[in-house]
Amino acid sequence: MPSYRGSVMEGVSVGAQSLKHVKVREYVRALVAGSIPGSAAPSERELVNLFGVARMTVRQAMDALVVEGLLERIPGRGTFVARPRRAPTPVLSFSEDMRRRGMLPESVTLLARLEQAGPGVARALGLTPGDAVIHWRRLRRADAMPMCIEDAYLNEILLPGFLQSGMPVSLYDELGDRGMRPTWAEDNVNADLATEEEAVHLEVDAGAPVLRQQRRAFAEEKVVEVSRSTFRADRFTLRLQLGQSE
Amino acid sequence: MPSYRGSVMEGVSVGAQSLKHVKVREYVRALVAGSIPGSAAPSERELVNLFGVARMTVRQAMDALVVEGLLERIPGRGTFVARPRRAPTPVLSFSEDMRRRGMLPESVTLLARLEQAGPGVARALGLTPGDAVIHWRRLRRADAMPMCIEDAYLNEILLPGFLQSGMPVSLYDELGDRGMRPTWAEDNVNADLATEEEAVHLEVDAGAPVLRQQRRAFAEEKVVEVSRSTFRADRFTLRLQLGQSE
Repeated sequence: MPSYRGSVMEGVSVGAQSLKHVKVREYVRALVAGSIPGSAAPSERELVNLFGVARMTVRQAMDALVVEGLLERIPGRGTFVARPRRAPTPVLSFSEDMRRRGMLPESVTLLARLEQAGPGVARALGLTPGDAVIHWRRLRRADAMPMCIEDAYLNEILLPGFLQSGMPVSLYDELGDRGMRPTWAEDNVNADLATEEEAVHLEVDAGAPVLRQQRRAFAEEKVVEVSRSTFRADRFTLRLQLGQSE
Repeated sequence: MPSYRGSVMEGVSVGAQSLKHVKVREYVRALVAGSIPGSAAPSERELVNLFGVARMTVRQAMDALVVEGLLERIPGRGTFVARPRRAPTPVLSFSEDMRRRGMLPESVTLLARLEQAGPGVARALGLTPGDAVIHWRRLRRADAMPMCIEDAYLNEILLPGFLQSGMPVSLYDELGDRGMRPTWAEDNVNADLATEEEAVHLEVDAGAPVLRQQRRAFAEEKVVEVSRSTFRADRFTLRLQLGQSE
């Protein structure tokens, strides 16, 4: 049985000050969602008054949104809603996705073992049924609330020693360290009702709506991950950017 | 009240011969889904025997998959599963999406009128609440079965005479004719349960799982469409390709 490095909190510790900054940032994000590019962002003074925080805290929040590309500063004029950047949806891990939403991701490993690939997993990974695959099941939380159950299947041949060395905190970071960070994925997404077992883990009623996402993730031409994620629909909306980059 | 050009069948008429071709094509598509690039496609002879159709019909099916990029022919060697083309998910209309799936799209207009924009629609379209918007609600079928209810909101100023000239068969074609074909979109996707009213139109039980897709579609920098689509989860899975193009 491997030790579970993955069961610790994935984020850095969050003090009262940075929570305030996140609160301001997410307020501004919601406020400018759907605004016309070029319209004025809320002023720092307004936000200082509204939240009763230091100007530095507001500045920190706005800086993060500028870096993200949601706002832009025009010297001598002020801060404005940026033109949308036409970049297609990137391949994000759960942790990366949650952090972008201003939430703190955590994981609890429910299962981590070697299995024989069934026909579906084998085909998706480019293996033969019966070949050894790593099956890693995690309960994923955001801001300490259950968000998702994820079953990842990995090609054991590509990941020697993976189970033996203890599960990593972040799968995508670990794949990155091994030169196999996923940069491309084929996802299938649909809606369903939570099964009894899912309902227990997700802390919802059986039959509650869930979003199911099946992923085949690639590093170069290699399939490095096949996964099934089941999200609480009351907490999770998939955000997509479709079309050609500018 | 406008006349409803949109209530006629959108596709071309489909004879028995082309239905066979579609059947073979979709069989091969399902068969090679998840296959390793470079592995052999099923042979034309096998398919002729399996479906009891003419070789020309099989050839037509395979040709379509080659054009789509799912299969590739290597002269002197045969037909193989193509390397995945790394193109991000394009912005497709419902009709285009259904045709790619080998299904025949149809539409029935449920509502088409001028309304005053509420705050959410106004913000998404870059308008002021109370501004005139075209609200077009359609029941969308695929292969004669209900698939989706779509509410589209359009900026009336960008589309002079739109309601007066009768609703178009295809919104995206009509936008294209006016030089505003959507090429970029921000979609939000989540899972929910069908309301009583949706259940009637979609011919499912109230409380059945549905996939909800909210779209803001752009032509250049202009928002040309804001829509909400509700899909039957038992019939529809969203297919996404994420990441950077090659």
